[in-house]
Amino acid sequence: MSDVLQLAADLISRPSVTPEDEGCQQLMGERLAAVGFNLESMVFEDTTNLWARRGSEGPLFCFAGHTDVVPTGPLEQWHTPPFEPTVMDGYLHGRGAADMKGSLAAMVVATERFVQKHPNHKGSIAYLITSDEEGPFINGTVRVIDTLEARNEKITWCIVGEPSSTKTVGDVVKNGRRGSLSGYLTVKGVQGHVAYPHLAKNPVHLAAPALAELAGIEWDKGNEFFPPTSFQISNLKSGTGAENVVPGELEVKFNFRFSTESSSDNLKARVTGLLDAHGLDYDLHWKLNGEPFLTGSGPLLGAVQLAIEEVTGQPTRLETSGGTSDGRFIAPTGAQVVELGPVNTTIHKVNECTKVDELDKLALIYERLLERLLA
Amino acid sequence: MSDVLQLAADLISRPSVTPEDEGCQQLMGERLAAVGFNLESMVFEDTTNLWARRGSEGPLFCFAGHTDVVPTGPLEQWHTPPFEPTVMDGYLHGRGAADMKGSLAAMVVATERFVQKHPNHKGSIAYLITSDEEGPFINGTVRVIDTLEARNEKITWCIVGEPSSTKTVGDVVKNGRRGSLSGYLTVKGVQGHVAYPHLAKNPVHLAAPALAELAGIEWDKGNEFFPPTSFQISNLKSGTGAENVVPGELEVKFNFRFSTESSSDNLKARVTGLLDAHGLDYDLHWKLNGEPFLTGSGPLLGAVQLAIEEVTGQPTRLETSGGTSDGRFIAPTGAQVVELGPVNTTIHKVNECTKVDELDKLALIYERLLERLLA
Repeated sequence: MSDVLQLAADLISRPSVTPEDEGCQQLMGERLAAVGFNLESMVFEDTTNLWARRGSEGPLFCFAGHTDVVPTGPLEQWHTPPFEPTVMDGYLHGRGAADMKGSLAAMVVATERFVQKHPNHKGSIAYLITSDEEGPFINGTVRVIDTLEARNEKITWCIVGEPSSTKTVGDVVKNGRRGSLSGYLTVKGVQGHVAYPHLAKNPVHLAAPALAELAGIEWDKGNEFFPPTSFQISNLKSGTGAENVVPGELEVKFNFRFSTESSSDNLKARVTGLLDAHGLDYDLHWKLNGEPFLTGSGPLLGAVQLAIEEVTGQPTRLETSGGTSDGRFIAPTGAQVVELGPVNTTIHKVNECTKVDELDKLALIYERLLERLLA
Repeated sequence: MSDVLQLAADLISRPSVTPEDEGCQQLMGERLAAVGFNLESMVFEDTTNLWARRGSEGPLFCFAGHTDVVPTGPLEQWHTPPFEPTVMDGYLHGRGAADMKGSLAAMVVATERFVQKHPNHKGSIAYLITSDEEGPFINGTVRVIDTLEARNEKITWCIVGEPSSTKTVGDVVKNGRRGSLSGYLTVKGVQGHVAYPHLAKNPVHLAAPALAELAGIEWDKGNEFFPPTSFQISNLKSGTGAENVVPGELEVKFNFRFSTESSSDNLKARVTGLLDAHGLDYDLHWKLNGEPFLTGSGPLLGAVQLAIEEVTGQPTRLETSGGTSDGRFIAPTGAQVVELGPVNTTIHKVNECTKVDELDKLALIYERLLERLLA
């Protein structure tokens, strides 16, 4: 059994459903301390985070990731117990195998090997590990970054171990992410009896033309790295349940996934302007889940592309699609951020698994990266 | 205490919340039997109905009404106990005082007086009394009418004792009612992740232009007796609650209140045509609550107008606005139907009440009506 597989299995056997860590960070910390890392445990509310650093100089290369996993879902649908790591037909099965305890194991083993070969490497290596990435993400990476920023500790290059790959390890990396902006809209009317419509103002009728217009807008055309900005209504609710009552309010929840061609301020202004132009009486609250970020050509992206091609023999594809990741909290500090991890086809599902030999390849890619940037 | 007030109080003291009758029909029946009515109790499922008739010839004049009342609402907001009839400042207080135990008492007393004066009146007098008007109205008037139709027993003229008046008794009568047609629409899309909109089809986005168009249509202009047909969306629902999920379906409940310028078939066809023109994938179910009806100039309406003017000194106003009533089940048999009853400002509210002297006036109007039509 390879070092990477052994460590991944040890991590999977700890049932660290968000926000629990179940000793995963301690296990990683012991390994890192043994090769010269300083450990700093940052506990915020219910969340345990690990900041580990080897070296005090710049540039600072950081591995970022999370030890928490999503719930198992229906146990009877698992072919193997989710917290008993099992190798079958070349795959390691268990909750977190791909998202992202496999990556964590590959990072640690790659780092050990690199440090053994290059004990006096350039710059510094760090780990930013949280246990709330799959949950509310309020006491994890975002607060560690706040702490680092407060003491002016800057990450130069960051690899987030999220499962970016689609068919084989390294075939896709994420060199950016769309922004995510949520809106909570309440359109106000006047409740009344269906039989007396002149005494009521139906908020559904008032809002329908505005919603139709919002749904039809081309917000931007995207660019080389981003698909066009997308607007989606996720939830809509109006009415008391009674069929003879004109509702008094309409609630609309919507979400933008936006490219670097739009900004959250610009999107907010366009929505507000449209609602005002329709003469609506409304309340609107916003939640910015993350501005978009993009890591363009540079030392990190170049090293990633070369390391993948060397290990896998195939070029990687740059993408910015998909959901958010903790990269959105790290990129605004000025860090270059790339997400690079295992194949993501089974993540968050029952029977999550990852190919054993791809875990070893991933460790090799991570090790090459360290060599290219810090050797 | 007047006869009308005494009988109204006796009825109010029976807590006959739908579908309970609590002996109201027995009390009325005893009074009617004493002046020569034949009684027929028609019990359907949980509902007791009374069909009482004096005479076997036509024309048949019918008083229609209901003994059931709506729930009291918050007891602590009542100034007097709702089922303890109380006279204060010239008003009779209690649940059902206006809707419609006051009318029932006025009908019975008017009938007693008329029969005493005209024991050999023309035609017949009947009572169609139910105890489910305020509820699901499936075992009340509609089934009594079915029974009468099956034996070809035809009502010529019908006074429904619903509280039609707005400021003083008799100021408004309803000589028709709009139709009511409900639609239950499900627009189908494809559920997906907000981050991958190209894999989903958002039913809210697809339906919004159609809903905007429906909300803006002028269905007809109404006519002398009816306001324009009104379309209202009463309930709208889409989304799983999760904010990162594109919903798979949109549910819309809507209702038409329609004039005699439109028919239910025509409205259905227009809605279906519009949804098809928008290329929507949908399910649509209809419920016809009642076609519109209108009682134009004729013996009944003429008698009503004269009787009111004689008793109150004021002309009455003909209206067809407002909610549905059991008149919709009676009119399709060919009967002329007019709703004439007390002031409706407190109905269905806490502290329901009706003016004592207007109950006496109402009895007088009913008596004059009988005289004009059957003396």
